Amino acid sequence: MDQTVSASYLSHQHVAFPDGLMLECGFHLAPVEVAYRTYGTLSPRRDNAILICHALTGDQYVAEPHPLTGKPGWWSRLVGPGLPIDTDRFFVICINVLGGCMGSTGPRSPRPCPDGRCEPWGTDFPPITIRDMVQAQKLLIDHMGITRLFAVLGGSMGGMQVLEWAAAFPEMVFAAIPIATAPFHSAQNIAFNEVSRQAIFADPQWYGGRYWEHDAIPARGLAVARMMAHITYLSEEALNRKFGRRVRSAPQGTEANPGSLFGEMFEVESYLRHQGSTFVRRFDANSYLTITRAMDYFDIGAEYEGDLSRPFRGTHTRFCIVSFSSDWLFPTSQARLLARALNRVAANVSFVEIDSDKGHDAFLLDEPDLDRTIRGFVAGAAEYARIA
Amino acid sequence: MDQTVSASYLSHQHVAFPDGLMLECGFHLAPVEVAYRTYGTLSPRRDNAILICHALTGDQYVAEPHPLTGKPGWWSRLVGPGLPIDTDRFFVICINVLGGCMGSTGPRSPRPCPDGRCEPWGTDFPPITIRDMVQAQKLLIDHMGITRLFAVLGGSMGGMQVLEWAAAFPEMVFAAIPIATAPFHSAQNIAFNEVSRQAIFADPQWYGGRYWEHDAIPARGLAVARMMAHITYLSEEALNRKFGRRVRSAPQGTEANPGSLFGEMFEVESYLRHQGSTFVRRFDANSYLTITRAMDYFDIGAEYEGDLSRPFRGTHTRFCIVSFSSDWLFPTSQARLLARALNRVAANVSFVEIDSDKGHDAFLLDEPDLDRTIRGFVAGAAEYARIA
Repeated sequence: MDQTVSASYLSHQHVAFPDGLMLECGFHLAPVEVAYRTYGTLSPRRDNAILICHALTGDQYVAEPHPLTGKPGWWSRLVGPGLPIDTDRFFVICINVLGGCMGSTGPRSPRPCPDGRCEPWGTDFPPITIRDMVQAQKLLIDHMGITRLFAVLGGSMGGMQVLEWAAAFPEMVFAAIPIATAPFHSAQNIAFNEVSRQAIFADPQWYGGRYWEHDAIPARGLAVARMMAHITYLSEEALNRKFGRRVRSAPQGTEANPGSLFGEMFEVESYLRHQGSTFVRRFDANSYLTITRAMDYFDIGAEYEGDLSRPFRGTHTRFCIVSFSSDWLFPTSQARLLARALNRVAANVSFVEIDSDKGHDAFLLDEPDLDRTIRGFVAGAAEYARIA
Repeated sequence: MDQTVSASYLSHQHVAFPDGLMLECGFHLAPVEVAYRTYGTLSPRRDNAILICHALTGDQYVAEPHPLTGKPGWWSRLVGPGLPIDTDRFFVICINVLGGCMGSTGPRSPRPCPDGRCEPWGTDFPPITIRDMVQAQKLLIDHMGITRLFAVLGGSMGGMQVLEWAAAFPEMVFAAIPIATAPFHSAQNIAFNEVSRQAIFADPQWYGGRYWEHDAIPARGLAVARMMAHITYLSEEALNRKFGRRVRSAPQGTEANPGSLFGEMFEVESYLRHQGSTFVRRFDANSYLTITRAMDYFDIGAEYEGDLSRPFRGTHTRFCIVSFSSDWLFPTSQARLLARALNRVAANVSFVEIDSDKGHDAFLLDEPDLDRTIRGFVAGAAEYARIA
């Protein structure tokens, strides 16, 4: 597996910025490549752009089949002609985050070196933050000649980027829809991320992060990380409904099932193993480490001694905050903290808690209330913005 | 590390049963050794015995320092002279579960073989169930000449054993206190256990379960399992209160911290790593696999098509069910299922939900309401039982 160059399928939409970026850690990262996908047409006035920010393991393929897995775009239910985010009307942009592994600069990208023998950054890739991700996105938005985004939206880590956009570039964000997210990453979420990282480090194929030298990937560790994370994306109710205590035959002749009674395994085990094994084929372990760290560092009030209002003082952005009742990873209580912080600076805020038993993943699943909420808010905001 | 023989410190209280046990899976396990600790004195009428059942990673050292870690007994707050479980009055027994690694027969025990060259069972140890654990405990209780236990109590997996005792030997259980437990293991809990197991399998030192042959233990995988489980034992509130987003200096010169910003790590990360690394020194990986499987199989209504009442029909046992408000691993909703099932067969049931932000671990921590509940119920039940 050649991980030293970007695969050709990733080259269809990307821009290289040779001057790169000064990162929050003080490191000057250059060059910076930004891979993205767009849908719809930018209006002559360039006022109809919607930026969609993806989550930890998402990518820019929001409304088209994934080039590696062939699966439909992760929000193809919401983004397209006539859909709540209507590509007949809006110009939709989705950008692979800095630190990612689908074409934007990240740990798998070649590290510039004087003698021309390029190898990947690997674990030497500098620590990045949500702010760095947003700064990289802004390079592309500026490059496109867009001075104001009509809307920025995203779920989970995507929602963190939405908040960072609204705080860092308030004049550039007309409307913001942070979904299933929080104004800072909680101790519990940091804890889960840390276990993910330790699972990757524990893999014999990790090789101190230089696994490409051994033509290997830390697949088992990454799968364990994904399996655990996947549980946190669901809810007890959803797991009971989908799997309960149903059993199925266990695969024979494998070490992975010792101690199984009657050669059976629970369906939920089989499901999780499948989730783990398919994930490692499309995601880079060093990217997983880099991005989970970025999430952990996220705290929109960090510069203001934890005051969550100050970053939004004087904002004219219209906010629509969405949470899901059964989401225990980014619970409604955290969305409420955000709503109250915005209220304290008299921001224009709607706050919708959607009743769902699907857990955190509800933002990615068939949840008609979410579709209706986004359609209504986008349509209303477009009227105020006087978008044709 | 010689794992083929029980260490001598484990030999101070144990009984060998050469005829062993017929396990639920149909395997005849023999011999069976039962390691235990007792506190207080058995009355001449043998009517003052209290059996305490331990949880997944607990053991028989309930009220005295642990021989490996030197830490106080896991319930020394509750068990002792003048304490809620008063050893001046009661004869307290705590037994290492079948499948454990502190002296009772388990995967680390020598497997009988015709040619006398003993090696540990390892992953060939038969799958066991909570019922098997209780049957092994009953061997010892019979051996002690005790025909009725005044009380059986325990938290988490200990609570599962309490329910199994009350269902299998109702005439032997005067009072039962299942704490922070459930009548069956939920899909979410099975899912977490499965990730634990996969983390162990992914460790290069696992060697297909025959790690003793390599003088190794799958320490990193077991630590990952423990770290993840530990998160589930706490609550979001407890983690926020204990750690929040506080940071500390990260250890230098280790691969375990790439991508750290400013050389810092979150305190919750440091705490979890400590939890993981201390655990592996005292617990056997194959025992962890065996016991988590036993928990997954637990469903007190399995033989009655999920009817949770039937196992308790006609019971005279007095039940005191305890749950904790912030326990999301064994939530109050599951305790309530149990209480309703017992109500349907007109059992004598108290049900107490204790308000606590400490999560599942509350049953092991300083929780005065739990102490009061147990003291009150035990004292009241002792009056009915006419214990001197």
